[in-house]
Amino acid sequence: MTELKNDRFLRALLKQPVDRTPIWMMRQAGRYLPEYRASRANAGSFMDLCMNHEFACEVTLQPLDRYPGLDAAILFSDILTIPDAMNLGLYFETGEGPKFKKIVRTEADVAALPVVNTASDLSYVTKAVSTIRQELNGRVPLIGFSGSPWTLATYMVEGGSSKDFRHVKAMMYNQPEVMHELLNKLALSVIDYLNAQIQAGAQAVQIFDTWGGVLSHAAYQEFSLKYMQKIVDGLIREHEGRKVPVILFTKGAGQWLEMMADTGCDALGLDWTTDIGAARRRVGDQVTLQGNMDPNVLYAQPERIREEVASILASYGEGTGHVFNLGHGIHQFVDPEHAKAFIEAVVELSPAYHK
Amino acid sequence: MTELKNDRFLRALLKQPVDRTPIWMMRQAGRYLPEYRASRANAGSFMDLCMNHEFACEVTLQPLDRYPGLDAAILFSDILTIPDAMNLGLYFETGEGPKFKKIVRTEADVAALPVVNTASDLSYVTKAVSTIRQELNGRVPLIGFSGSPWTLATYMVEGGSSKDFRHVKAMMYNQPEVMHELLNKLALSVIDYLNAQIQAGAQAVQIFDTWGGVLSHAAYQEFSLKYMQKIVDGLIREHEGRKVPVILFTKGAGQWLEMMADTGCDALGLDWTTDIGAARRRVGDQVTLQGNMDPNVLYAQPERIREEVASILASYGEGTGHVFNLGHGIHQFVDPEHAKAFIEAVVELSPAYHK
Repeated sequence: MTELKNDRFLRALLKQPVDRTPIWMMRQAGRYLPEYRASRANAGSFMDLCMNHEFACEVTLQPLDRYPGLDAAILFSDILTIPDAMNLGLYFETGEGPKFKKIVRTEADVAALPVVNTASDLSYVTKAVSTIRQELNGRVPLIGFSGSPWTLATYMVEGGSSKDFRHVKAMMYNQPEVMHELLNKLALSVIDYLNAQIQAGAQAVQIFDTWGGVLSHAAYQEFSLKYMQKIVDGLIREHEGRKVPVILFTKGAGQWLEMMADTGCDALGLDWTTDIGAARRRVGDQVTLQGNMDPNVLYAQPERIREEVASILASYGEGTGHVFNLGHGIHQFVDPEHAKAFIEAVVELSPAYHK
Repeated sequence: MTELKNDRFLRALLKQPVDRTPIWMMRQAGRYLPEYRASRANAGSFMDLCMNHEFACEVTLQPLDRYPGLDAAILFSDILTIPDAMNLGLYFETGEGPKFKKIVRTEADVAALPVVNTASDLSYVTKAVSTIRQELNGRVPLIGFSGSPWTLATYMVEGGSSKDFRHVKAMMYNQPEVMHELLNKLALSVIDYLNAQIQAGAQAVQIFDTWGGVLSHAAYQEFSLKYMQKIVDGLIREHEGRKVPVILFTKGAGQWLEMMADTGCDALGLDWTTDIGAARRRVGDQVTLQGNMDPNVLYAQPERIREEVASILASYGEGTGHVFNLGHGIHQFVDPEHAKAFIEAVVELSPAYHK
C-alpha cells in the first residue's frame, strides 16, 4: 500500500503528538457542495450514487479537493445499507427521508431476517472503499462507518425516520427478548461489515449511534451500548501493520461518556451540548475526543465561526487527543465558504496548542 | 380561599415530609383521553378550547375525575399564548403543529414587538385560572405555566416547529444583541404572565424550556438559563400565605442540572435520559426532582409499566423531594388504561419510601 502522507488524524486518535489538531466534518461529502449536487444529478437517485463505486469515490474526494485542510476522507454511503441488504427494500421519498417497504414489528419478522454477509450482499460498499483508497493514494486516511444496531433498529421497526420512536420502544419494553434478537443480528452484521471495510482499506471506523440519546439511562446500556461493545470486541483492530482506531458517536450521550469510554474504543464523538474541556477531565485519559461545534454555527459569519473554533480549542486545551469536527453532520443549506472559514480557523489556530 | 385537601404535591416541592410520592403527568389533559376529544370537538379549534374559560376548565378537570391518584391539576393552555398576544397570529395546521403568520427575523421585527400585558392581552388565561381554581374547590393544587423565553423565541423566529433551528441560531450567533433584546422582552412578558396566573390562583408554576437542550453548553447559559434566572428573580414567591414553588424543566439538560439548581428555583423537571438517583446525588440537597419516566413506557403492558415505576422509585430512594411525572408530555396514542396503571403503581408502590 502507498505510504500515508498525512497521518495527523490517525495519530490524534491514538493520542500521539501532532503538529496541529486534525479536522474532518461529518457529512462532508454532501448536498451543501454544488459539485456534489452535480454528481448526484448525473448518478440518478441517492442510492444509485452509493451503489456505484465510481460515483461514490468521486463525491468522497470532492471536499478534499475543495478544502486542503481536511485530514480525513469518509466513505460515501448510507447508514441503512445493512437493513437494505436484509431485504427490507430501502427507498427515499423526497422531503421525507428514508423508508422501508417491509417493516419489522413481530417476533416472526425478526426471525426471518438474515445476518448480512458483506462479501455477497454488500460488495458495492467494499468496492467503493478499495476504489477510494486507491484514488486517495495516501493523501489522507479513509474512515469506514456503520450505523449502530440500536439506530438501525429504529428505522427498521418504525419503517423510516421517527419523532417519538413509539413502535421501537413498545417492542423494547414489551418484548425485550425479540429486540435483543434483532440487535444481535444487527451487531453480527455490523462486525462483518466493518471488518470487510477495514480489509478493503478503511484505516479507522466510526459507529454512528444517531438515536441512542432517545433512550433512558438504563435502556441505553441494555439496548444500545451493549451491542456497540460487542462490535468493538469483534473488530479487526490492527491492519497493514497499523492500529485501526474505533470511534463511537452517540448523539445526546453527554451524560454517558464514562461508560462509552469503558468499551475499549479509541475515541468518542461529542455533540455540541457537552463542554469538551469538561469531557476531557472526565474521560480524556482513556480516549480521544472528536467534535464538537454546533453545525448551526456555520450559518454565522466567518469571524463568528472563527471565535467558536477558538473557544472549543481553548476549552480542550493543550496536547493531542482532540480531533476537530462538528457535533453532527453539516447541513445542506450551509454556504461552502463558511465551511472553508471553519476548516481554515482550525488549521490556523490549533498549532498553538501543540508546541 | 378554600382549604387545600391534598397538598402532597406542594409539600414535596418544598421538601416537606409526605405520605407517598405525589404524581401528575405533563399534558395530562390531552388527546389520549376520549372525553378531551369530545370537548375539543364541541369547542371548535384548539385555540377556541384554550380561549374559552369554561372549556379550559372542563378539560383541566377531566384527568382528575378519571384518575383519583393525581395530585395536581395543570392549567389547560398553549405555550404560544405570549407570541400570539404579541400579534404574530398563531394558527394550527393539521398534522403540522403551530405556525405564525408573522415571523420574527430582523432587528426591526424585534423592535416592533410589545412586552405583553397579561391583564389586557391575555385575560382569557387568568380567567381560566380563576375558574379552574374555583371548580377544583381545594381538591388538589393548580399549576400555572409558561414557555421559556428561548423556547418561545424558537417558534417566533422559525415561524413554527423546527428540526434544525437554523434561523433562530443564525440570529443568535450573528446578531446576539438582537436575540438578547427579543429574549428580554419575552422574559418581561413571562414574569407578568406567571405573576398574573399566581394572583389568579395558580399555586405553583412550571417553566417549560422544551428546546433549551438544542443549545451548546455555553449558549444554554447565555440564551436560555439567563432569562429563566431573570424570571425566577421576578416571580411572586409567596401568595395566600403559602410559598409558590417554581419548577424549571429544560428537556435534554441532564448535563446542566447544577447550574439550573443555582437559579433559586424549587424543583427541576428531568427527562428520562437522566438517572434520577444520580441527579439526586448531584443537586438533591438544593432542589426537588420531578420526573422522569419515558412517556413511551406507557405503550408497554401494565406489568412492565409497574416495573419501570418501581425502578425509578428505587433509584430516587427514601424521603421527600420527588414528584413523580413522565419525562415529557403523554403521547396522544397512549391507552388511558395504561396511564391508569402508571398512576396506580406510583400510589401503591411509593408509600414504602416515606415511612
